[in-house]
Amino acid sequence: MTAEPVRAPHALPGFARSTVDGYAVRAADTYGVSEGLPGYLTVTGAVPMGTAPGVTVTSGTAVSMPTGGAIPPGADAVVMIEYTAEAMPGTIEVVRPVAPGEGIVRADEDAAEGQQLIRSGRVLRPQDLAMLAAAGVTSVRVHARPVVTVFSTGDEVVPPDTEVLKPGQVRDATASALAALVRDAGGTPVLGGIVSDDPGALERALRAALPESDVIVISAGSSVGTRDETANAVAALGPPGIWCHGLAIKPGKPTLLAECGASTDTGTAGGPGIPVIGLPGNPRSALVVFRLIGMPLIRLVGGLAAAPPEPSTRAVLSRDLASATGRLDVVQVTVSDGVATPLFGASALLSVLTEADGYLVIPEEATGLDAGTEVTVTRYA
Amino acid sequence: MTAEPVRAPHALPGFARSTVDGYAVRAADTYGVSEGLPGYLTVTGAVPMGTAPGVTVTSGTAVSMPTGGAIPPGADAVVMIEYTAEAMPGTIEVVRPVAPGEGIVRADEDAAEGQQLIRSGRVLRPQDLAMLAAAGVTSVRVHARPVVTVFSTGDEVVPPDTEVLKPGQVRDATASALAALVRDAGGTPVLGGIVSDDPGALERALRAALPESDVIVISAGSSVGTRDETANAVAALGPPGIWCHGLAIKPGKPTLLAECGASTDTGTAGGPGIPVIGLPGNPRSALVVFRLIGMPLIRLVGGLAAAPPEPSTRAVLSRDLASATGRLDVVQVTVSDGVATPLFGASALLSVLTEADGYLVIPEEATGLDAGTEVTVTRYA
Repeated sequence: MTAEPVRAPHALPGFARSTVDGYAVRAADTYGVSEGLPGYLTVTGAVPMGTAPGVTVTSGTAVSMPTGGAIPPGADAVVMIEYTAEAMPGTIEVVRPVAPGEGIVRADEDAAEGQQLIRSGRVLRPQDLAMLAAAGVTSVRVHARPVVTVFSTGDEVVPPDTEVLKPGQVRDATASALAALVRDAGGTPVLGGIVSDDPGALERALRAALPESDVIVISAGSSVGTRDETANAVAALGPPGIWCHGLAIKPGKPTLLAECGASTDTGTAGGPGIPVIGLPGNPRSALVVFRLIGMPLIRLVGGLAAAPPEPSTRAVLSRDLASATGRLDVVQVTVSDGVATPLFGASALLSVLTEADGYLVIPEEATGLDAGTEVTVTRYA
Repeated sequence: MTAEPVRAPHALPGFARSTVDGYAVRAADTYGVSEGLPGYLTVTGAVPMGTAPGVTVTSGTAVSMPTGGAIPPGADAVVMIEYTAEAMPGTIEVVRPVAPGEGIVRADEDAAEGQQLIRSGRVLRPQDLAMLAAAGVTSVRVHARPVVTVFSTGDEVVPPDTEVLKPGQVRDATASALAALVRDAGGTPVLGGIVSDDPGALERALRAALPESDVIVISAGSSVGTRDETANAVAALGPPGIWCHGLAIKPGKPTLLAECGASTDTGTAGGPGIPVIGLPGNPRSALVVFRLIGMPLIRLVGGLAAAPPEPSTRAVLSRDLASATGRLDVVQVTVSDGVATPLFGASALLSVLTEADGYLVIPEEATGLDAGTEVTVTRYA
């Protein structure tokens, strides 16, 4: 993410170049020529690629040019080789007139000296790298990638490499998926591991992570008890504290948003706190909410001025979908032959997400969508 | 890119789980209950998170359950805590009936043992990582990233870190942008550097790269001479050789496609050759063609079964666009308020690409597009 605009250190391409293979000429020497009445010019030299032209074009003369070659002094146009023929050794006939500037890219046509090449707050695209390379800019000031610490909680949660589960245990499905989403949003994920439900354990872990993190994400346990524990631990981190606990999103209702640890120790007005997101315990709910809330937050913290475009497709809904007014519904769908088919299942089921091609959003004001409605499906890459 | 389907090593979640906070019961015990006529059940225990239930539910009893907890033997439903009240210590009243299976995710509801979790030939998405983690699958067989060697040619081309250009020189703008596009397509770029126009130099460089590469890309010089040199060097690499030299694409006409170095030394039928793409000399043409031809090729070599969805937007064309029949035109555009405005300029100009929000394609059969036509713009990320 660029942290400042990048300007051209000099004009680009820096010298007038030929856009065609042909002959550098004075345009006036070609006025009125035609197939029936060609003009004749004396070839006084050739410009090799990558070197300064050693000849000057004067009235009645022409210089042989490769595409991309530097235009010699005196010339103001290049005739394409297709419109010339060698009349005799050292002389060409020209059968089409050229206007001044034809066949030429001006020395500052790609960029004038000091012109902005890349604006601030954007991810460098491949063509931006090309432009920077052309300008000789090999380093740019960028925003640091936000460090996003991800904690998992819940006494039932064990690491993914646990080979055999004891009854009641589940592997930590959310943390590695969150790490991938953090990376997609331009952040650097740090896996803080699984924190036990012991009173105080989460608070200690959060406190230790606060100075090293730009954002903290807690994949909370699914039971009310661990959710309360998460809220208590976040509240204990200090001001400004919890913004909201519960979102009008389905799935994703028990989401907690907070800002914690704004420095007040110095007695001066503290800086802003660290954003903390407490995600629902169900992996599927957690991943849905994190796409909607967490990824935009990380992009913002990372300095991205505008959200990147997302792949989407228009499709016709296969069946009625109910929704409550005042609640935003995120519905996973498969898309085939222009038809979006909703996938259902308990929010604990990950298979609904892995089978989905994308999702659609039923806005807060809608009470549902009828079968046959044309919808926009955001596609998973 | 997965190289084989991944199957569930055991049923997921692996045990029947509660989807709510409440009480595990026998559904039959709740039939007919209502606010006016509650049922009464004796609470015989509680299931802690992450452990095997130590109690069995029998007729007339209930066991306290956290969301995600393991359903105790004997129970076939969970009543939400909202529909219960403590009648007296050790006894709850239930005011709503539950059906068998309500409030429960079955032991194999996310995946049955041996069921395909992830199909072959796909990039693992964040939710796929979640599913694999849940299943305890911490390593999967994937296709190796294709190694794509990128050469630059042209006597006028100097490295991007050249501070001061001599007259006629240009910095290598294309190679680093190609490297970024190769990475976006799932390949590993290897920059082969700038090869001089000396006869034989390119052939030697290509020959040396052939055994280490899955794909070779040559960013050719812009002049006819270096383009011929590229074709000669590629032809010398051996069978099957050049497929085509020239594409009906604008910009991008002087593109060369070849397959080289199929092994015939052993006397047996050789394997397939290495794909070689000779790109146009203009950086802008090269990058346009590489998006259209090179990136899909790299995905194919990398084992990707289907092209990933690309961000696109519908927009109304601001002005007439001419095109020749039988030629595919790629037009760079800005998009603002639903209007796509074409950007023009010599194909040597990189600024046209850096200013663009995306591009539209005029298909081969069209003779152009009228102002006001609704077009699909593929957006740059």
